[in-house]
Amino acid sequence: MQTTVIGLGKMGRALATALVERGHDTTVWNRTPGRSGDLAVTHAATAADAFAANELVILCLLDSESVVAVLDGVDVRDRTIVNLTTSTPAEAAKLSALVAERGGDYLDGGIMAIPSMIGTPAAVVLYSGSEQAFRRAEDVLAAFGDRRYLGAEPGLAALNDIAMLTGMYGMFGGFVHAAAMVRTEGVPVVEFTETLLIPWLRGLFPALVGMAAQIDSGDYTAKESDLSMQVANDGIAEVSRAQGVSTELSEPLFTLMRRRVEQGFGGDDFPSVIELLS
Amino acid sequence: MQTTVIGLGKMGRALATALVERGHDTTVWNRTPGRSGDLAVTHAATAADAFAANELVILCLLDSESVVAVLDGVDVRDRTIVNLTTSTPAEAAKLSALVAERGGDYLDGGIMAIPSMIGTPAAVVLYSGSEQAFRRAEDVLAAFGDRRYLGAEPGLAALNDIAMLTGMYGMFGGFVHAAAMVRTEGVPVVEFTETLLIPWLRGLFPALVGMAAQIDSGDYTAKESDLSMQVANDGIAEVSRAQGVSTELSEPLFTLMRRRVEQGFGGDDFPSVIELLS
Ligand SMILES: NC(=O)c1ccc[n+]([C@@H]2O[C@H](COP(=O)([O-])OP(=O)(O)OC[C@H]3O[C@@H](n4cnc5c(N)ncnc54)[C@H](OP(=O)(O)O)[C@@H]3O)[C@@H](O)[C@H]2O)c1
Ligand SMILES: NC(=O)c1ccc[n+]([C@@H]2O[C@H](COP(=O)([O-])OP(=O)(O)OC[C@H]3O[C@@H](n4cnc5c(N)ncnc54)[C@H](OP(=O)(O)O)[C@@H]3O)[C@@H](O)[C@H]2O)c1
Repeated sequence: MQTTVIGLGKMGRALATALVERGHDTTVWNRTPGRSGDLAVTHAATAADAFAANELVILCLLDSESVVAVLDGVDVRDRTIVNLTTSTPAEAAKLSALVAERGGDYLDGGIMAIPSMIGTPAAVVLYSGSEQAFRRAEDVLAAFGDRRYLGAEPGLAALNDIAMLTGMYGMFGGFVHAAAMVRTEGVPVVEFTETLLIPWLRGLFPALVGMAAQIDSGDYTAKESDLSMQVANDGIAEVSRAQGVSTELSEPLFTLMRRRVEQGFGGDDFPSVIELLS
Repeated sequence: MQTTVIGLGKMGRALATALVERGHDTTVWNRTPGRSGDLAVTHAATAADAFAANELVILCLLDSESVVAVLDGVDVRDRTIVNLTTSTPAEAAKLSALVAERGGDYLDGGIMAIPSMIGTPAAVVLYSGSEQAFRRAEDVLAAFGDRRYLGAEPGLAALNDIAMLTGMYGMFGGFVHAAAMVRTEGVPVVEFTETLLIPWLRGLFPALVGMAAQIDSGDYTAKESDLSMQVANDGIAEVSRAQGVSTELSEPLFTLMRRRVEQGFGGDDFPSVIELLS
């Protein structure tokens, strides 16, 4: 299928490369010329030409403002626009309305991968917006990696994307605090991470699903270890201090847990704290 | 092997049960009598009798103070004392010295499991302290689950135990913040957790090992995405606010990352922030 790629930054170049490698006839445009290296692609002289060249147009630019700037002055009628630029749910909704108004079909995407992962099954791309656009583009989008269509609401991909990043930074924060603790006694962090932390976190995944079910149901009745028990012995703060490690990453969660206990929910399981977040 | 278990709380009972199920001749003592249910064990009338009964004595009490209280007035000469009560590294060091002074051999342990997991391979118990005690007790300790001897320093099990808990709460905090975001748009949290978050976190485990290697080496030179890039677009704060979700769990880490960039380490990879923690 003939495809246009707009934007040849680090990620756009990875996307265009994946298309060419899978034999897709690809037209590219980038604001600054000369960014396609030796890729076997057709170069459009202007953004308008790039949109005119093919019905399917994939964008991967710095941010939503750059997408708005590029869309300004091009004809999107009967185009299937797949925007893989990271955006917020609100920006995705705005772009979808803008494209629809002007006769195009809009699909938003969130790339959960770094450029070197594009084209491998490890790369996951979330999509939301026009289902028709997703179905039409799916064979092409398969070139990038695993794909998940999340629904017609254009902001869903952006929302789930940022939620996954939030989960990632939570794990990273816990990791770096834990690493700071063990290295105070000269424990090699790689050994701790490989032999203890990762198997432990993996073993906790079923517990995450259980907590998710409690959140969906709103029933937080504790099964094995309630919030009061969890905050009673705050060994994390005590040992961190004793080892000279800052508690600034763990304190906010324990503060939340204590606040929930004070509110009278000490008999609840951990995920009950979500009610203090929103 | 004949074994004594001191403490029949939720965890101590699970330990005694695992021993009996594997055919170990077990003597028990608990401060409050009548806590062993219908377990096929021998009851010692006093703590001193329980210590006198067997060379191997396993303790699982509320906290280190209760262990000190029980050890006071019993004869620990030639006993192998395995203390599975949660303690801090400093408490473990103190108990080890106390037992050694009085002629016993001390092994500290940290149980990474809830009572229902005891006796299954999913239960991991960390040990540190006397290696001789570990070797002597190992066949009995096998009844509880997977076991890891971490070294002769008595506090190592406690330190690694609390570091693993720290990693766990980091992941839990990220999870609950992410869940708060997706549920604002009516996305079922179980679906998000099972199909998106868990595969994503699992896919990031190799990155954790890479970060651990950077910490061990002290070389944080960025490979794909440096700290400046990571803090440039704080979508987590922006989208959280737009969806009415508190940023109190994510802000501390982003504050740390921004502080590190301000210090001139914007070209470093994420784990560079550890240098601000200790
Ligand atoms: N890199 C990653 O690891 C990664 C991972 C997941 C998602 N993403 C997302 O992918 C998107 C692109 O990232 P990237 O790493 O490719 O960034 P990048 O290397 O900085 O490339 C930015 C691209 O945007 C173009 N651009 C910027 N402002 C523009 C404007 N006003 N008009 C037209 N074009 C403009 C640039 O064109 P010039 O060449 O003319 O400057 C360039 O092609 C971002 O939304 C990013 O969040 C990236
Ligand atoms: N439960 C878990 O999920 C879990 C997981 C990992 C680690 N652990 C650790 O395992 C240990 C025991 O936990 P648990 O859940 O079994 O607690 P628990 O059900 O509250 O039992 C506490 C035990 O300590 C005894 N005790 C308390 N103070 C005492 C004292 N001054 N002198 C003598 N005995 C005393 C109690 O005896 P009485 O019956 O006389 O009160 C009881 O046997 C703790 O260190 C805990 O951190 C527990």
